[in-house]
Amino acid sequence: MAEQSGNNDNSTALLTDHYELTMLGSALADGTGERDCVFEVFARRLPAGRRYGVVAGTARVVEAITDFRFTDAEIAQLETTAVVDGDTLSWLADYEFSGDVDGYPEGELYFPGSPILTVRGTFAECVVLETVALSILNHDSAVASAAARMSSAAHGRPIIEMGGRRTHEQAAVAAARAAYLAGFATTSNLEAGRRYGIPTRGTVAHAFMLLHDSEEAAFRAQIDKMGVDTTLLVDTYDITAGIETAVRVAGPELGAIRIDSGDVGVLARKAREQLDSLGASDTRIVVSGDLDEHAIAALRAEPVDAYGVGTSVVTGSGAPTAGMVYKLVEVDGRPVAKRSEHKASRGGRKSALRRHKPTGTALEEVVYPTAKPPELGEYDRELLIPLMRAGQPVDELPTLEDGRQRLRRALVSLPWEGLKLSGGDPAIPTTFS
Amino acid sequence: MAEQSGNNDNSTALLTDHYELTMLGSALADGTGERDCVFEVFARRLPAGRRYGVVAGTARVVEAITDFRFTDAEIAQLETTAVVDGDTLSWLADYEFSGDVDGYPEGELYFPGSPILTVRGTFAECVVLETVALSILNHDSAVASAAARMSSAAHGRPIIEMGGRRTHEQAAVAAARAAYLAGFATTSNLEAGRRYGIPTRGTVAHAFMLLHDSEEAAFRAQIDKMGVDTTLLVDTYDITAGIETAVRVAGPELGAIRIDSGDVGVLARKAREQLDSLGASDTRIVVSGDLDEHAIAALRAEPVDAYGVGTSVVTGSGAPTAGMVYKLVEVDGRPVAKRSEHKASRGGRKSALRRHKPTGTALEEVVYPTAKPPELGEYDRELLIPLMRAGQPVDELPTLEDGRQRLRRALVSLPWEGLKLSGGDPAIPTTFS
Repeated sequence: MAEQSGNNDNSTALLTDHYELTMLGSALADGTGERDCVFEVFARRLPAGRRYGVVAGTARVVEAITDFRFTDAEIAQLETTAVVDGDTLSWLADYEFSGDVDGYPEGELYFPGSPILTVRGTFAECVVLETVALSILNHDSAVASAAARMSSAAHGRPIIEMGGRRTHEQAAVAAARAAYLAGFATTSNLEAGRRYGIPTRGTVAHAFMLLHDSEEAAFRAQIDKMGVDTTLLVDTYDITAGIETAVRVAGPELGAIRIDSGDVGVLARKAREQLDSLGASDTRIVVSGDLDEHAIAALRAEPVDAYGVGTSVVTGSGAPTAGMVYKLVEVDGRPVAKRSEHKASRGGRKSALRRHKPTGTALEEVVYPTAKPPELGEYDRELLIPLMRAGQPVDELPTLEDGRQRLRRALVSLPWEGLKLSGGDPAIPTTFS
Repeated sequence: MAEQSGNNDNSTALLTDHYELTMLGSALADGTGERDCVFEVFARRLPAGRRYGVVAGTARVVEAITDFRFTDAEIAQLETTAVVDGDTLSWLADYEFSGDVDGYPEGELYFPGSPILTVRGTFAECVVLETVALSILNHDSAVASAAARMSSAAHGRPIIEMGGRRTHEQAAVAAARAAYLAGFATTSNLEAGRRYGIPTRGTVAHAFMLLHDSEEAAFRAQIDKMGVDTTLLVDTYDITAGIETAVRVAGPELGAIRIDSGDVGVLARKAREQLDSLGASDTRIVVSGDLDEHAIAALRAEPVDAYGVGTSVVTGSGAPTAGMVYKLVEVDGRPVAKRSEHKASRGGRKSALRRHKPTGTALEEVVYPTAKPPELGEYDRELLIPLMRAGQPVDELPTLEDGRQRLRRALVSLPWEGLKLSGGDPAIPTTFS
């Protein structure tokens, strides 16, 4: 049983599409597998109406590439199912990525065509990384992009991520990380606490209220254990009676109340008045229940102290995947590109810089051939950083906290239209030079 | 680094929301943790416009509950972060679920209010399972529900699942499983092949074409390695020229061509004519590229032999989560329910049966108190099966293949409106007796 519940080991090598290994087999056989290649990750467009995207997952991609090894277990599986032949299996058994990776650091904004990640090495060693790199970037960036809009809408009020139950159990952990990167204050997910050091929070669910013989008994049990600086859930029966009981049991030092259902704006206003009238003017109000960035924005004028956000953030608020692709753009120094009329792409290894006004406001994303950099103006900023060299992560990889700060600065640099929640065009244009 | 890339061990114990452990701490302290409880998983509604849902993930939930153990690593993390106190930690260190679980088997249809899973035991042992059970069921059922619509639309033509790159790397594996359960023929995901024995497929991407000096050279390399019964990707440059070259290189025994971009219906028709004119009348046509159930339905009259589906299936085709909840419905034999005006729920342990016409067509879902079963008519079918007894999985848990067959039969039993892809009401009403 146990072998089906998650990763058996830390290898990421089978988080891979079948065709990557069949391509590998053919390319090793005819010698083209040794050609020097550049693969590029980019998004052809942002999700409909979005004005910016947020890069997330880069650090996880570097780890996944580091862990990409075919151990006996993986080789045995490929042998049994005859995915590739013996020569290819031997090659895979020795696999260790030896190339270079550059990319946008986590927390950086991206726009259509931004070269978010470039992977350089032989065709053989790079082609097998497509799926795991895209899975991570597409998921994490989708969540971070939605979460950033929610953080903006919350205008400094803290948000707790509590959507783990609405997404795959391991995606939940990565989603908590992406939301934290994008400014959320805390998460409910304990594994995200362990794996990434993100602060976790939580008090009780309605089940705890229903378990007890009365609301008062439940409140007393919680306060006995957790002290009065806790959050009491007041909407199990009647909210007004619940708040009255809460303050009677906890006293006016009660930390917070949570409202999880109904028209939370109206309810928060009534609750604030009631709390104040009971002398609990420092008791905070936490609201949750199907909130997204629009609902959060609509609550800006209400006396809400913190938001709990679940489904909408872990599902990317309507855009559950970032739609990034991993394309071969250079072979032995020659630019290559698909030339059919649909989905055409731009060949050649690329870098990017962002131009700004002297005030710091972003003007445009300039994507250029790495070999032909344009002049870097005083207010321009290069966007790619080295991530791996000769198969090893660089020494000073940005931390999650670095990414959090980077995004905060980057959002400030957007033209004001860029932060609007309504549908629109990308906040700045992408220019290909 | 390695510790961040996936599960460190097989324990699922921290795939849990913080509040479950704080509730546990309070309930252990005041003695209510020992009360006998029933928790129920259900969906208040189907995603907008959907006519049925498909249960998936049940087998993974049983595994996750079996693996739910707090080893030294988990205890150390909870101790360091002071999530709960020492007494609660001691209790967790001995945790082993000892209760009973019943549920809808995988591949069964569900409707609003269907009691998809019931978990029975002490409050303490059941409350901690909420997040991991919901994560799995909400993700897997969302994918299976979308995939079933695609399978119906494909009318027997095989579909390959190839969306792993558009979702979290571990969600990808579960999504491949859910799609297979719902009738997909194969997957591109190698880990799904290893973990669940699902047949994997794949040939080449555009990168393989661009790697080579010409389309012809790429086709030759592929055929040399994989034989003529392979699938050649013909849309890298010009499709008509690509097909001509493909048949010239492979001969009329060529297995298949794949078209991944453009108006695939029109292109498939032209390709069929061209292939036939070249004597390659047995060469199949595989299409892919942003297909969903509506696009598949629109291709029904076109000469397409197989579909490749990615983004839409792994993201639930507009409904990335099933929205199921895990609610306390019974305490020491007494029904309990939230009574506030919003999100009210029905108390008491429940079971369900589906009534059918003599022709086999489903009529209604009847949800009833387990203690008061209605009379079971000749054409009625009970829906819940035992999954765990005294903490152990039952002997004859249905297999993935069982679920696949169950869904095929269940879909045949739906009233014909139930299979329409357009938005509508649930195919059958749910009656609470």
